[in-house]
Amino acid sequence: MVAVAVVDATEPGNVGTIARSMKNFGLDELLLVDPPELDPDGEAYGFAGQAREDVLPNARELTFDELVSEYHTVGCTAITNEDATKHVRYPFLTPAELAADLRGIESETAVVFGRERVGLTNDELARMDQVCSIPATDDYPVLNLGQAATIVLYELRDLTVSEIQHPEDRHERADQQAIEGLHDQFETFLEDIGHPEEKRGKASRLWRRVIGRAHPTGREARTLRGIFRKAGQRIERAEDGE
Amino acid sequence: MVAVAVVDATEPGNVGTIARSMKNFGLDELLLVDPPELDPDGEAYGFAGQAREDVLPNARELTFDELVSEYHTVGCTAITNEDATKHVRYPFLTPAELAADLRGIESETAVVFGRERVGLTNDELARMDQVCSIPATDDYPVLNLGQAATIVLYELRDLTVSEIQHPEDRHERADQQAIEGLHDQFETFLEDIGHPEEKRGKASRLWRRVIGRAHPTGREARTLRGIFRKAGQRIERAEDGE
Repeated sequence: MVAVAVVDATEPGNVGTIARSMKNFGLDELLLVDPPELDPDGEAYGFAGQAREDVLPNARELTFDELVSEYHTVGCTAITNEDATKHVRYPFLTPAELAADLRGIESETAVVFGRERVGLTNDELARMDQVCSIPATDDYPVLNLGQAATIVLYELRDLTVSEIQHPEDRHERADQQAIEGLHDQFETFLEDIGHPEEKRGKASRLWRRVIGRAHPTGREARTLRGIFRKAGQRIERAEDGE
Repeated sequence: MVAVAVVDATEPGNVGTIARSMKNFGLDELLLVDPPELDPDGEAYGFAGQAREDVLPNARELTFDELVSEYHTVGCTAITNEDATKHVRYPFLTPAELAADLRGIESETAVVFGRERVGLTNDELARMDQVCSIPATDDYPVLNLGQAATIVLYELRDLTVSEIQHPEDRHERADQQAIEGLHDQFETFLEDIGHPEEKRGKASRLWRRVIGRAHPTGREARTLRGIFRKAGQRIERAEDGE
């Protein structure tokens, strides 16, 4: 199981934000080293969303020594070393690599985030087992504490979330018969509107490419087919002088 | 290019947080529909980090009509439809899929985030070109506004960040010769400490597995080799009665 540890944060709001992200991504064990006061009427609880009911009140305060002795710790930092000549912050994993690295390991692991302005110190990182760093722009790679934690938890979701909110089928494409039916109707439509015969092949190919990229659902294919059919009928009736 | 639009946010701090994440991930075009007041001494600027210098003061206020008519809009929402019978929020892409989907498209695109409590309305989403939804836990999939935006921008980084802060070589493994040298030294060390000859093969294999998974750097392999050599020498000298 994966826990989240926050070392020496000063803003209660950040602790609340992290608690909420934990709940969003299926984690519930929040560890706090030297936390700010978390007033139930203050920003920590204000920012925690539904995590105010469980993650935040159940947070455990512990010492840094307890943290590193009880958990396999992964220190998160924006600032890494550049190569193997310094090893406090090198080698390191990206959050996506960390998720792959931890897959299948059930023992207690804590991802650890440092204080707002300066993150984790070299002395703190030196005592941790692994290092993780979020790729960001070279000009300004230092994320807000709450944002950094959210990205790491998001990447760990396959390890921690048992069921996501999305339907299994995120994009149910129409069966090919329905799509070919739409294409046939489009060709009829071109006839109906009197599109020059020699240009119909080209227009049909263009239409096939647009629809091919769009992967329409069954409902979309049926509805569009109906609209083109209706347009043809309307033209026919109008031309029959009805 | 990718812009970020925030519709009807009420908390200046969230706008500032989003501006900072934009700067972290190489974006600079912030579009605001019905924004709260952004006081230069208030939370928007307080949370913006270095984005207070550029992204935030350069934000453009525009109407929702202007947004959807000027940009290809991707509406972000935690709550999706379940299947193709309703199409306001279906089909949708995850942020990672959106990044793949937009690759190679240079025309103006805006990822759009809604107000804090209820996100984007159905009427708003209906006017947008695509839908994106972050996978989170089914129990509580609604992220804080700033966290949701950060995850989407993080996933789009390959399209927007020209140079990340990490060295190209995130993990420089020692060449195989150095690693074999370490293994040879470990075997010598087993001899030096008098580890039973019949158990040495098994201990060496165990050691090879540990080191194989750890992918040591050149410095790590050399340093460990030196430590085992030194231990052997110390034993030898001690046993010689020096």
